[in-house]
Amino acid sequence: MKSAIQGEAGSFSHEAALRLLPGCSVAPCASFSEVFDRLLSGSVAAALIPIENSLAGSVAENFDLLLQHEVWVQRELLLRIQHHLIAAPGVRLRDLRRVFSHPVALEQCRDYFRSHPRIKSTPFYDTAGSVKHVIEENLRDAAAIAGRQAAGEYGGHILKSGIEDDKRNFTRFFLVSRRRRVLAGADKTSIAFSVKNLPGALFKALSVFALREISLSKIESRPVRGRPWEYVFYVDFLRGRDQAAANALRHLSEVADFVKVLGIYPAA
Amino acid sequence: MKSAIQGEAGSFSHEAALRLLPGCSVAPCASFSEVFDRLLSGSVAAALIPIENSLAGSVAENFDLLLQHEVWVQRELLLRIQHHLIAAPGVRLRDLRRVFSHPVALEQCRDYFRSHPRIKSTPFYDTAGSVKHVIEENLRDAAAIAGRQAAGEYGGHILKSGIEDDKRNFTRFFLVSRRRRVLAGADKTSIAFSVKNLPGALFKALSVFALREISLSKIESRPVRGRPWEYVFYVDFLRGRDQAAANALRHLSEVADFVKVLGIYPAA
Repeated sequence: MKSAIQGEAGSFSHEAALRLLPGCSVAPCASFSEVFDRLLSGSVAAALIPIENSLAGSVAENFDLLLQHEVWVQRELLLRIQHHLIAAPGVRLRDLRRVFSHPVALEQCRDYFRSHPRIKSTPFYDTAGSVKHVIEENLRDAAAIAGRQAAGEYGGHILKSGIEDDKRNFTRFFLVSRRRRVLAGADKTSIAFSVKNLPGALFKALSVFALREISLSKIESRPVRGRPWEYVFYVDFLRGRDQAAANALRHLSEVADFVKVLGIYPAA
Repeated sequence: MKSAIQGEAGSFSHEAALRLLPGCSVAPCASFSEVFDRLLSGSVAAALIPIENSLAGSVAENFDLLLQHEVWVQRELLLRIQHHLIAAPGVRLRDLRRVFSHPVALEQCRDYFRSHPRIKSTPFYDTAGSVKHVIEENLRDAAAIAGRQAAGEYGGHILKSGIEDDKRNFTRFFLVSRRRRVLAGADKTSIAFSVKNLPGALFKALSVFALREISLSKIESRPVRGRPWEYVFYVDFLRGRDQAAANALRHLSEVADFVKVLGIYPAA
């Protein structure tokens, strides 16, 4: 089974794909829109996309892509993000003068750089890509920050594990397919909807859940692409395919301009 | 007057600073947390931070920093984002083989790359920084994508203007100060609050606005830093310092765990 991911092989998305689809191969893509293009064209069976991080927030682009395309969220996964210092074989900690990684990963390892002032934090476009870079160029004074998967992928050596400042760093991933299949035990639903820009419109929309004592686990407003400062709402609620959820969605479609169910899946 | 910005001189934040504080100088910072550190230490009078983009969504980190620190949103600005192709003097369009920029800017100019397949889109850590790079290295086969300000800052030559795919590309900036000063004509309020994780809790919280016919212009849930999957809500509403707003905030403090007013300012 082949799964599209954004970024280089060895990334956290690759790690997430192997968790949900053991033994799968990945198709690395340059952008999230390419990930969706490959899924829709049928050249891969699934896509693995990060949707939010407990420290950095939502991956807005992926919400928009889920809304635009006829795809289906089949599963979710919470992946603990651990950052490792990875270098070419033979490079020692005391040799390091530069460390490459994606700016978000560098920012999540600030304490390490504070306690090692000789080492220069150097922004790079991708975490796994920075490992590929230091190994391929066989840099002797440099390391990269990435997940464990990247070390295995490129033959890097882990010099130090778990250098992230905050251990409560998780990324939530979606496994996305073309087919609308609801797995057994599905107890969580992700939807998008929009309401007219009137006082109380969102309040009315949320009443359909409150009246039925359905818990929301996430709500987010996002500007509508191309219509600045008009908003679409993304909501997750803790129900699968039961009568109360069906009633709430029918009620919501009366008060909202549009409603789209993005997926129904087992909560991670 | 000196204002802290994230990124290199010549960035869109620099452009925003000059719009709101004509003639100001900027203090470029490597990260948003450094921007806040400089503001709090008093080494700058203000900070200019991007808060959301009409295509890319919210800058989550800045919401968290506004919540954590004793600072005040004094003004907002909507800046139209135009991307330009900028190269060293003498370089011609037909010489180009590589174009550097921040991945978000590259993604926003996909049509340009599609119609120029000879030119390789090359990720770089910063838009203005990519202009600095092509000029300082005097690259003869390369250009960078950035705002107009960057060309002036580094002596680059604009080869082509307005190459972004979607013209409805705006970034919303906040002017942040240490002092809680409410400007004349302030008619918009930004707040953060959290509610217990119970069914209907958010619904109750929003009722304080709906009952008073106060329009919300934005709502977003964000995970609480360090407590995975607990949420704080960021809400903008279209009222300044009037009786209804004061009543709504007092009412909200009864149903919410905490409420923080981030700023009261004139709507852009």
